[in-house]
Amino acid sequence: MHILILGAAGMLGRKLTAAITGGALPFSRLTLADLVAPPDVPGASSVAVNLADPGAAELLLQDRPDLIFHLAAIVSGEAEADLAKGYAVNLDASRALFDAIAARQGYCPRLVFASSLAVFGAPFPKVIPDDFHLTPRTSYGTQKAMTELLLSDYSRRGLLDGVALRLPTICIRPGKPNRAASGFYSSILREPLNGLPAILPVRDTLRHWFASPRAATGFFLRAATLDTGKLGPSRALSMPGLSASIAEMIEALRRVAGQGAVDLIRREPDPVIQAIVEPWAEACEATTARALGFAAESSFDEIIGVYLKDDFPTRSI
Amino acid sequence: MHILILGAAGMLGRKLTAAITGGALPFSRLTLADLVAPPDVPGASSVAVNLADPGAAELLLQDRPDLIFHLAAIVSGEAEADLAKGYAVNLDASRALFDAIAARQGYCPRLVFASSLAVFGAPFPKVIPDDFHLTPRTSYGTQKAMTELLLSDYSRRGLLDGVALRLPTICIRPGKPNRAASGFYSSILREPLNGLPAILPVRDTLRHWFASPRAATGFFLRAATLDTGKLGPSRALSMPGLSASIAEMIEALRRVAGQGAVDLIRREPDPVIQAIVEPWAEACEATTARALGFAAESSFDEIIGVYLKDDFPTRSI
Repeated sequence: MHILILGAAGMLGRKLTAAITGGALPFSRLTLADLVAPPDVPGASSVAVNLADPGAAELLLQDRPDLIFHLAAIVSGEAEADLAKGYAVNLDASRALFDAIAARQGYCPRLVFASSLAVFGAPFPKVIPDDFHLTPRTSYGTQKAMTELLLSDYSRRGLLDGVALRLPTICIRPGKPNRAASGFYSSILREPLNGLPAILPVRDTLRHWFASPRAATGFFLRAATLDTGKLGPSRALSMPGLSASIAEMIEALRRVAGQGAVDLIRREPDPVIQAIVEPWAEACEATTARALGFAAESSFDEIIGVYLKDDFPTRSI
Repeated sequence: MHILILGAAGMLGRKLTAAITGGALPFSRLTLADLVAPPDVPGASSVAVNLADPGAAELLLQDRPDLIFHLAAIVSGEAEADLAKGYAVNLDASRALFDAIAARQGYCPRLVFASSLAVFGAPFPKVIPDDFHLTPRTSYGTQKAMTELLLSDYSRRGLLDGVALRLPTICIRPGKPNRAASGFYSSILREPLNGLPAILPVRDTLRHWFASPRAATGFFLRAATLDTGKLGPSRALSMPGLSASIAEMIEALRRVAGQGAVDLIRREPDPVIQAIVEPWAEACEATTARALGFAAESSFDEIIGVYLKDDFPTRSI
């Protein structure tokens, strides 16, 4: 099996690559693509390519990969700041890929697409059902929702065999703190675990929906071999996760690393970050995905344990 | 006020034009655009333009119309038969229009977009709530759903002031029978009212969701002056209508035109047409739209009455 990973240089792309080369999926060939060539991995070939460039999709498909993981995107902050770039990368490049696949006779690869909970928008019920309506509140969420719809239509027509995964917030992200509005969700645990101070910009009672990088990797692997005949007309699946409040995250940190670690968290309310993250989803049902074998963590102790095993001490991945 | 109607040569475009020139909306200028120049109307200018052509949107916007009705589209059968054309016309041309509007500084026109119930897909509840999930089962429905999402995002960003109207099946369409799968919904009433035979290809118990051409015109006019500040993050509204079975439609025909008219209907079950229309929606709540003053008929006697007043005897419009 020939596997292609788009967005292979990102955090999840690297984790997925490591899982596949580690034996999680059999492959005869593995191609890693990103804006900058992903690091060399034994048994894989790396290519630097911008999927938004004319002809890029055709080039990547010339050897007809059987399985395509499409994780290439710009993040929500950038998509909100740059309207044209967001639509060009997050919608048009995906569509160019789908069209290039559709143009090839007798070719219908499995395509696993990284979507996002951002396809949903407040007001939310406490737990978002699988068939909640699409009301994105950001351009990023709009682009993901539009791409999901396109993926489902092309799959219905037999032009490709798509699955879109609506990912929870991934926590604990390895590496350095970044400037994403959601970055504190990882840093309030990661920094204290590494003996470093961290800033908490929101209230302790704020609740959100999480899965570890390892769980996210598992979602992609599960989607690769899923019987898509079991899916309904929508090929988009809300992924399982763990609903936790900041207070619950901190309690788990205390259990794992002690009060000294907790004392490294400094509360500095930030109205800008609050305004962005306060309306985010608290939990998803993910009934369909769970029934199909997608699984995430069931406690923050587990999520911290995954970080300690896979990514501790802090390193850039 | 400068008003622009895109798709002005179609049945609804002509009805809307007639309503506006008849005084339904004040205007200083009225521009009618379609693939073929719409018929000359006193006080209006007509232009033949393909919105899918490069530069077409910029040309139409050069005098900054304050109110744009966007009814230009290809129908569901054609969008299903020709994938590239469907996306080019129903998605890309709309997006080119939105982008051309967004590119103009200090310009934020009201844009009323003709969407469709086809954004929803079976399985349905008996009555579809306003926040039912988007699961189109056709490429046409997918294109309409994607355009709705884009319209909502651009409206949220203040680039335009959009309202998308999810129209019921319009009945009784004037003119000759056409080859649309849904054509029989009009022809089983229109032909007998004109003393002509008609074919019924589906079961009498089949139930669907209707509004008259006059009601649809009213929807567009209502949307033109709506306070969009009252809408939520989604700018798409399911329109009110009348839920009726074939049997109820025929009973209304009997009341209005007698048994002789009913006897002109010949039952010829057609599995191809059945397969297309059987999964269609039976009814919508349209709670939000009704509260905002959108209104449709409440009986098929009324719908037949509208036809007899506005379009009888049969003529091409």
